[in-house]
Amino acid sequence: MLQDQTILRIPGPSPIPPSVQRAMSQTMIGHRGKETSHMLKNIGPGLKRVFGTEQEVAIIAGSGTAGLETAVVNVVKPGDEVLVVVTGAFGDRFTKICETYNIRTHVLSVDWGKALDPKEVQAYIVEHPEVKVVFTTYCETSTGVLNPIDKLAEAVREVSEALIVVDGVSCVGGVETKMDEWGIDVMVTGSQKAFMLPAGLTFVAASEKAWKVIEENEQPRFYLHLKKYRDNLLKDTTPFTPALSLLFGLEQVLNLLEEEGLENVYKRHTLLMKMTRAAFKAINIPLLTTDEDASPTVTAVQPEDFDAEEFRKVLKQEFTISIAGGQQHLTGKIFRIGHMGYCSPADVLQVISAIEITLMKIGKNIELGKATAAAQLVYLNEGENN
Amino acid sequence: MLQDQTILRIPGPSPIPPSVQRAMSQTMIGHRGKETSHMLKNIGPGLKRVFGTEQEVAIIAGSGTAGLETAVVNVVKPGDEVLVVVTGAFGDRFTKICETYNIRTHVLSVDWGKALDPKEVQAYIVEHPEVKVVFTTYCETSTGVLNPIDKLAEAVREVSEALIVVDGVSCVGGVETKMDEWGIDVMVTGSQKAFMLPAGLTFVAASEKAWKVIEENEQPRFYLHLKKYRDNLLKDTTPFTPALSLLFGLEQVLNLLEEEGLENVYKRHTLLMKMTRAAFKAINIPLLTTDEDASPTVTAVQPEDFDAEEFRKVLKQEFTISIAGGQQHLTGKIFRIGHMGYCSPADVLQVISAIEITLMKIGKNIELGKATAAAQLVYLNEGENN
Repeated sequence: MLQDQTILRIPGPSPIPPSVQRAMSQTMIGHRGKETSHMLKNIGPGLKRVFGTEQEVAIIAGSGTAGLETAVVNVVKPGDEVLVVVTGAFGDRFTKICETYNIRTHVLSVDWGKALDPKEVQAYIVEHPEVKVVFTTYCETSTGVLNPIDKLAEAVREVSEALIVVDGVSCVGGVETKMDEWGIDVMVTGSQKAFMLPAGLTFVAASEKAWKVIEENEQPRFYLHLKKYRDNLLKDTTPFTPALSLLFGLEQVLNLLEEEGLENVYKRHTLLMKMTRAAFKAINIPLLTTDEDASPTVTAVQPEDFDAEEFRKVLKQEFTISIAGGQQHLTGKIFRIGHMGYCSPADVLQVISAIEITLMKIGKNIELGKATAAAQLVYLNEGENN
Repeated sequence: MLQDQTILRIPGPSPIPPSVQRAMSQTMIGHRGKETSHMLKNIGPGLKRVFGTEQEVAIIAGSGTAGLETAVVNVVKPGDEVLVVVTGAFGDRFTKICETYNIRTHVLSVDWGKALDPKEVQAYIVEHPEVKVVFTTYCETSTGVLNPIDKLAEAVREVSEALIVVDGVSCVGGVETKMDEWGIDVMVTGSQKAFMLPAGLTFVAASEKAWKVIEENEQPRFYLHLKKYRDNLLKDTTPFTPALSLLFGLEQVLNLLEEEGLENVYKRHTLLMKMTRAAFKAINIPLLTTDEDASPTVTAVQPEDFDAEEFRKVLKQEFTISIAGGQQHLTGKIFRIGHMGYCSPADVLQVISAIEITLMKIGKNIELGKATAAAQLVYLNEGENN
């Protein structure tokens, strides 16, 4: 079997474009020098466009979890009560962080695989007016659900002054994000998903309304103090040592997004989702989510008559294609295909056609080419150059 | 459209494995130092295995054409007559080199798309016993033909003492090559095809019988003097400045071939060829060569009812997939798909499924998924892990 090939179709980390790889291998420079300031000045506007905000977007060396914790320790004041709307494993992480800080945490759980219902959240807040912050997830990576955070923000605002904090880790950069327009107060994302970078950076932006809370908040925090990042960004520098090679890469990622055009990036992700979903529908393999709730960045499949783990193992063995399994109570019950960031329609066709062979290999009798044909038809009808 | 993706399926240069890319980016070292000697010592045995020879394989900084010229100027003595068996554009190159050196050159031309017939070559030599060297091509890149050089060598030996010189540029490393066993006197190949490297190296090996001629040959040559390369290799060094980064890459390529196992490498190439051919047969698009004459490294397709150039253009536009057109009188009449070196069954599935869409895009009405299904079936029946 061909050596040294790895086809990464898990929902993050995602593959890295060659020009980004090259950018990251640049020689180290002094991070307090003019070149780094110049780079930070360059990065700022592109990052704001991706977030759909005019606020500064903090760049923190850390994983997505560091970004989530940054949100918690900056916007939750000691004594505040918060609501976490949990739609899967990553929503749950907010709960754990809040509980660590002894924050009184309400949890509204939604069945895994379903999107949150803004009206239900609204009703909960009406019953619990003491909730000061609502935490939720934009794309729930563990289920492939895209939550309607625009409608959620609207529904919350109708009844409450609560801040709305969104974990956008597995979709910002691949899915339209209009933080300011939608009234999201804190948006967090990471570098290793739609941002096409290795893990190691987390990006956090806050609204004016959130900044008022952050500035007055007496919750102790040092490394994750968001104000330090913003104040330094305004002087084109960083409060702590930046992860320089990742910044080199980020600069190039923003160039690539700009070249493609953000609208086209979002359309491409939607196309990849539709191709993937059509393929499984064509061969009657159930999807975990409805079309309406589905995320453009990751698709979860829930097989009924074959073993998800065996399927993943054989796909890897035969084609070096990695896809993800289920998490927590969905372990062994679903598999998840990432189609985010550096992923093209040709890449989805490759995965689908390899999956057809893999299904036959594990004993499921399908009509070869049928799933591929369904994905091809989506491309023909809705493809990029139409 | 996704930026920074290029899917290279031309018959060379071929894509470069990431570990080879990394190896090539090593810091430069002194090429007269111990590390370079150590590397050359490491490279030798692997290269010999690929050639199927116990002779030294010269590593020359130059393109494949430099390798072909090396063969000519080293084994053709002034006044010698030679025969070039031409089966396509690259066979023709031997003729041009020989004519440049005012060598009396017989040419036996075979229809493009067909393999040479050893009996016909034998008959020609019987009629022209003054022929001292027979030049031919192992894989004719311009047509996707694999010539039966083992049978050719046998047929020539039956009637003549002529040396047999083979251009193996587009297949050695991807197709079984037993230079010693088959009685090939000079074998030439390049780095940018089945060797998975950038262009810039050419490899040349000669038989004992050829060495006798080379050592006595008074034909002037300086850089391309094969004896200098062999004598220096025996001392683990090179006569001229080596292309060091390509040597770093070559060392890693040989590791990868060793890890996969040469037999498996050859089986993989045959599988890729069969998958590709089955796909076009399934949708009734004619192939240029018969199954018997087909090369495991490149497939030429001869469409009857659509324009090859428009097809290539749309495939590139829609999917960034590059395939090759025809050369010389086949320009505009055929297209060629490279499936050599760093190419897996998943890569072939990707090209085929993208090709189906492209055919529809240019107005050819095919049943979507049918070509992919045919390739999938070949994999299921003859795949690597069966």
